Amino acid sequence: MAPIRNGRVLFNAIPRGYPIPGETTVYDTTQVIDIDTAPLLGGFLLKTLVLSVDPYMRGRMYAPGLGDSYTEPFQIGKPLTGFGIGVVVRSETSVVEEESYIYGSTIPHQEYSIIPTLGDLEIIEKHPDLPWSTYLGAAGMPGQTAYMGWKEFAHGKQGETAFITSGAGSVGSMVIQLAKQAGMKVIASAGSEDKVKFMKEIGADIAFNYKTTNTHNMLKHEGPIDVYWDNVGGEMLEMVLKFAAPKGRLLECGLISGTTPPNEVMPYFERLWVSGYNSPSLGIRNLHHLVTKGLTMNGIFLPRLLPKYETEFYNTIPEMLAKGEIKYSADITKGLEKLGDVILAVQKGWNTGKAVVVVAEE
Amino acid sequence: MAPIRNGRVLFNAIPRGYPIPGETTVYDTTQVIDIDTAPLLGGFLLKTLVLSVDPYMRGRMYAPGLGDSYTEPFQIGKPLTGFGIGVVVRSETSVVEEESYIYGSTIPHQEYSIIPTLGDLEIIEKHPDLPWSTYLGAAGMPGQTAYMGWKEFAHGKQGETAFITSGAGSVGSMVIQLAKQAGMKVIASAGSEDKVKFMKEIGADIAFNYKTTNTHNMLKHEGPIDVYWDNVGGEMLEMVLKFAAPKGRLLECGLISGTTPPNEVMPYFERLWVSGYNSPSLGIRNLHHLVTKGLTMNGIFLPRLLPKYETEFYNTIPEMLAKGEIKYSADITKGLEKLGDVILAVQKGWNTGKAVVVVAEE
Repeated sequence: MAPIRNGRVLFNAIPRGYPIPGETTVYDTTQVIDIDTAPLLGGFLLKTLVLSVDPYMRGRMYAPGLGDSYTEPFQIGKPLTGFGIGVVVRSETSVVEEESYIYGSTIPHQEYSIIPTLGDLEIIEKHPDLPWSTYLGAAGMPGQTAYMGWKEFAHGKQGETAFITSGAGSVGSMVIQLAKQAGMKVIASAGSEDKVKFMKEIGADIAFNYKTTNTHNMLKHEGPIDVYWDNVGGEMLEMVLKFAAPKGRLLECGLISGTTPPNEVMPYFERLWVSGYNSPSLGIRNLHHLVTKGLTMNGIFLPRLLPKYETEFYNTIPEMLAKGEIKYSADITKGLEKLGDVILAVQKGWNTGKAVVVVAEE
Repeated sequence: MAPIRNGRVLFNAIPRGYPIPGETTVYDTTQVIDIDTAPLLGGFLLKTLVLSVDPYMRGRMYAPGLGDSYTEPFQIGKPLTGFGIGVVVRSETSVVEEESYIYGSTIPHQEYSIIPTLGDLEIIEKHPDLPWSTYLGAAGMPGQTAYMGWKEFAHGKQGETAFITSGAGSVGSMVIQLAKQAGMKVIASAGSEDKVKFMKEIGADIAFNYKTTNTHNMLKHEGPIDVYWDNVGGEMLEMVLKFAAPKGRLLECGLISGTTPPNEVMPYFERLWVSGYNSPSLGIRNLHHLVTKGLTMNGIFLPRLLPKYETEFYNTIPEMLAKGEIKYSADITKGLEKLGDVILAVQKGWNTGKAVVVVAEE
């Protein structure tokens, strides 16, 4: 077979503010690949099927050596990388069989990749009734974050009250459903009427638009809050600290960290990585409630939870998703050439549901 | 026996700023009591032996109905109350025997009290080699806070690093020793050279005066911090968040909560209750480290921990104190008439070690 196009999304320039398609990233079609003969050097050839677009990606668009960020920056002139799934076309390693599927957080944003070793990538199997895109959302990293964070830290009890921010997102929407399954009263917030509607559909007892509703009064009347799923930080967190129940559990998934403390380099990109937002905020001024109410605050760092819960997750969640016992929302875009537009849309919050780019059908 | 003086320390006026002896509180000698015949009405007569003076007491010196403080205000014209120990002189209740000792957080600040019912007070036994004052410090509430908070939340491991603020205080000094017993490297801070010396004597590997040493550089070179015992909050907490190790545990015992958030009444006294300090502070601006490092932050609220650890505490700690296996420091003042001065000294931070007033020898 003759060489074919190997489309790629290259990191082209460090953005100032929002990443602009065609400037920050460019879709490049100059590379070709002969999938039958390209040398694998002991590795394997992966055909990319689906790629995840996430808020944290903005956080990797900075110059090397700047700050003490824990994520590596993208390299100018090289393809972006991120969560994705592909199918193995050819393999020269016994660890990876042809036609097997590979999942991981370092999949290059190109149609075909020659990968030297499995490394941190995983071989993954798909539920027959779910599309691969689901494995980047409800059955992937966001769903795992929700499921494992909840299991480890929420200790939700029948009759208690949970409050979930960004409740229409791929993490928050699963948390709403886990809280309902635990028999809790669920309050959920998001930033549009469409999202409020969706949160009610998936079971939130009280869903509100924080842009048009007074959150303080809402929590005052519907609280106190036993479990808080924090996707936003900032003043919302302060209000929850105020209206937290004694022994309340605060699960920190995303925080607007606000202004930079003295002696600390924490540039825009890192705040964005964590928050998915870019509005500045003051610090949290009422952490004394931690002491006076005996509260617990846990940061949800998925790599720490995966070893304990990964098998359980894959054994239960895909089946529940396939049966409709857990609902989810995905925002699918077809074509790698659109990936730059999806990056911007995710930064702007235009997507409804988990943003996934389908690069190729099987 | 003829009636004798029953000296009392009365709450006289709400202070503006520091509580002034003779103004905020007055020592009153107008009341007399006949300890043989005073009617007990089914209760018991307690002779006060020792009283604890604590930072939180300033937080009870406010007008009733102001704010949403969880502590009751002292009543103007009535004696202060607080942690203390007394001996039962007479009793009309079968629950309390004569010559037994009573411990609790609501002991009136007067020489003799008629107490209608045991309520939340406890009968307490003393180790023969320890003075009663110890049961208000290392063997009392501060020691319990240190011991139970550490046991529940620190999970300190051999070779890890602990950082303890206010390390010369009655809580912090025990935490230093618990951390050393766990095989940890211990960094400790306090605000004077005398306190630094004491912290080294009780085992801190690195002890420093935060007023004269750059904490940021200290933590940068001696960290990262696996376990943080937070007695102060504020910028110190921000620095620890920055230099926390992955999976670090932050134990929140006292926080400078800083400026008042919108919609939240949190007056001076409540901040003071929690912090024992009165310097204002901005909020905490880098809680995103909770997420990116998977940190845990637990508020230490003693009433929640007592049921689990109280028996174990009394079975082990007094013996270790008596043997010198745990060292402690007490600042003993004799005479109830001096109690107002001790309150001011504690607010000013002049005391070294747990402040206790000895009202009477047995």
